Amino acid sequence: MDKQYVVGVDMGGTNTVFGIVDARGNVLSKSAVKTSTHMDVNLYIDDIYNELIKLIDDVGGISKIKGIGVGAPNGNFYTGNIEFAPNLNWKGVIPFAKLMSEKFAVPAVLTNDANAAAIGEMTYGAARGMKNFIMITLGTGVGSGIVIDGKLVYGHDGFAGELGHTCSVRYNGRLCGCGRTGCLEAYASANGVARTAREIMETSKEESLLRNIPAESITSKDVHDAAVQGDKVALEIFEYTGKILGEALSDFVAFSAPEAIILFGGLTKAGDYILKPIVEHMEKNLLALWQGKIKVLFSDLKEADAAVLGASALAWEI
Amino acid sequence: MDKQYVVGVDMGGTNTVFGIVDARGNVLSKSAVKTSTHMDVNLYIDDIYNELIKLIDDVGGISKIKGIGVGAPNGNFYTGNIEFAPNLNWKGVIPFAKLMSEKFAVPAVLTNDANAAAIGEMTYGAARGMKNFIMITLGTGVGSGIVIDGKLVYGHDGFAGELGHTCSVRYNGRLCGCGRTGCLEAYASANGVARTAREIMETSKEESLLRNIPAESITSKDVHDAAVQGDKVALEIFEYTGKILGEALSDFVAFSAPEAIILFGGLTKAGDYILKPIVEHMEKNLLALWQGKIKVLFSDLKEADAAVLGASALAWEI
Repeated sequence: MDKQYVVGVDMGGTNTVFGIVDARGNVLSKSAVKTSTHMDVNLYIDDIYNELIKLIDDVGGISKIKGIGVGAPNGNFYTGNIEFAPNLNWKGVIPFAKLMSEKFAVPAVLTNDANAAAIGEMTYGAARGMKNFIMITLGTGVGSGIVIDGKLVYGHDGFAGELGHTCSVRYNGRLCGCGRTGCLEAYASANGVARTAREIMETSKEESLLRNIPAESITSKDVHDAAVQGDKVALEIFEYTGKILGEALSDFVAFSAPEAIILFGGLTKAGDYILKPIVEHMEKNLLALWQGKIKVLFSDLKEADAAVLGASALAWEI
Repeated sequence: MDKQYVVGVDMGGTNTVFGIVDARGNVLSKSAVKTSTHMDVNLYIDDIYNELIKLIDDVGGISKIKGIGVGAPNGNFYTGNIEFAPNLNWKGVIPFAKLMSEKFAVPAVLTNDANAAAIGEMTYGAARGMKNFIMITLGTGVGSGIVIDGKLVYGHDGFAGELGHTCSVRYNGRLCGCGRTGCLEAYASANGVARTAREIMETSKEESLLRNIPAESITSKDVHDAAVQGDKVALEIFEYTGKILGEALSDFVAFSAPEAIILFGGLTKAGDYILKPIVEHMEKNLLALWQGKIKVLFSDLKEADAAVLGASALAWEI
């Protein structure tokens, strides 16, 4: 096989990480550039090019590369465009896949970051061999990638799978960054956990290690570290977050009846502290026919590689 | 073409309707038997056979029939079984497609009634030409059939698309027939509308034509007839039902980004009285990227034929 490698590009609001990946899912080399410092998308691509072409040359040059897969905020698989991404400098519609393809003279495809993660999980991770699963990414936001019959669901317009913005987790609930209320993201994101921590500490008199941390900067990791020491407030934060997430998952199951739900991202570092309440409350809220049958798994890809792997996996199918 | 007809069987809890359908979706002939009087599924099939074989003979005999499609409560497309249907006499797992196929000596396939309706709508109705839509059936219960990339979603186990039992429409809301609380079905079914009518009449002092009807027997049609006369309570019932249904639809859009949502069943007879609040509240709750873009349509199949047509359409793909 001549074209034996693919490139994965994981574009975040702050940094962009990219790497060369072989057919077995080994990330052979990796590098990164800043995303947020570039006001002009062409200069940003120049910056990626200058770094990435070195890695490409190290594996034998561009003729060895089958294609480039990009995971990007608000990335649309159908058009290859990044469309109105709120956390990027480039406004409007950016034909990013086309620009990359022209710059490198190889095909490029693009999808959003959570979809890329789902493809990575299906190709190399916890969802290997599965035809029906839902990936939930729990990070700064809450994203999702839905796989049905072995294919990612893009929907009519390419934007399917915005499960972080299902709004009925709590009717008239917390204000979300999207401007609506009660979205899952307002509870299960990093920021959502910090809000829960503040709310619980305000209403409870319980002593807590978390009271030593400025309320606005509490992270999932802080809550986890406190939980390990038996901190009751920390355990209550995970119980509440897990309850809301578990209830939301039970509704997602009613939609696509997946074999498994795969969780990825910061919150999963809390391990059983978060997994137990998620599973308990999902089970309580499932229709009888699904009780005990839906796996809830953590991603088994290394977090540092997962996004690059996922994006790269897209490029095998060009 | 030798085998130029298919048979559609629509099994309800009370009656079973079946008919012969041609490739253009014309229902050539139709008949029915009782479902609920048969305690033995084999005798029930004998009963269908005796009626249906006459219709089959009228079109030239069994050699003209490509296959039989069945829409049945709790029908599983993968297995051909009816599994633990709460509103049928036959308990446990019934290999209904196999029994029908053996009796008639033609292939038979089976799915649940809402999935059959979705296939009918895609083949002959309002969803012709659509690859991505969601069908919601509003009847005694609330069912759904989800089509993605032109294919019905069955999920890992064959039971995907239970959107009537997404439970987060109202947290800790109404008790549903499934034993859980807050399901969409507890609000948007015929019974749900009657419950809303009772609740509104208990809490409001407003005069209403509906006060002349025993509260437990109020139907969507009664509410519609009152609404036509400007009855404020009736309008409030549709506003409340439409609000909950519209909010639920906005979450469904976040899942599969459909081109349209097709509504079918009793409640749709209320026309704009129910459609306007549904659309208004769906739009209010959609992410900005979908606002103004998702069609909400009523089925355009004759209600008497739709279920038979949908079931029959399955049989073309055997």
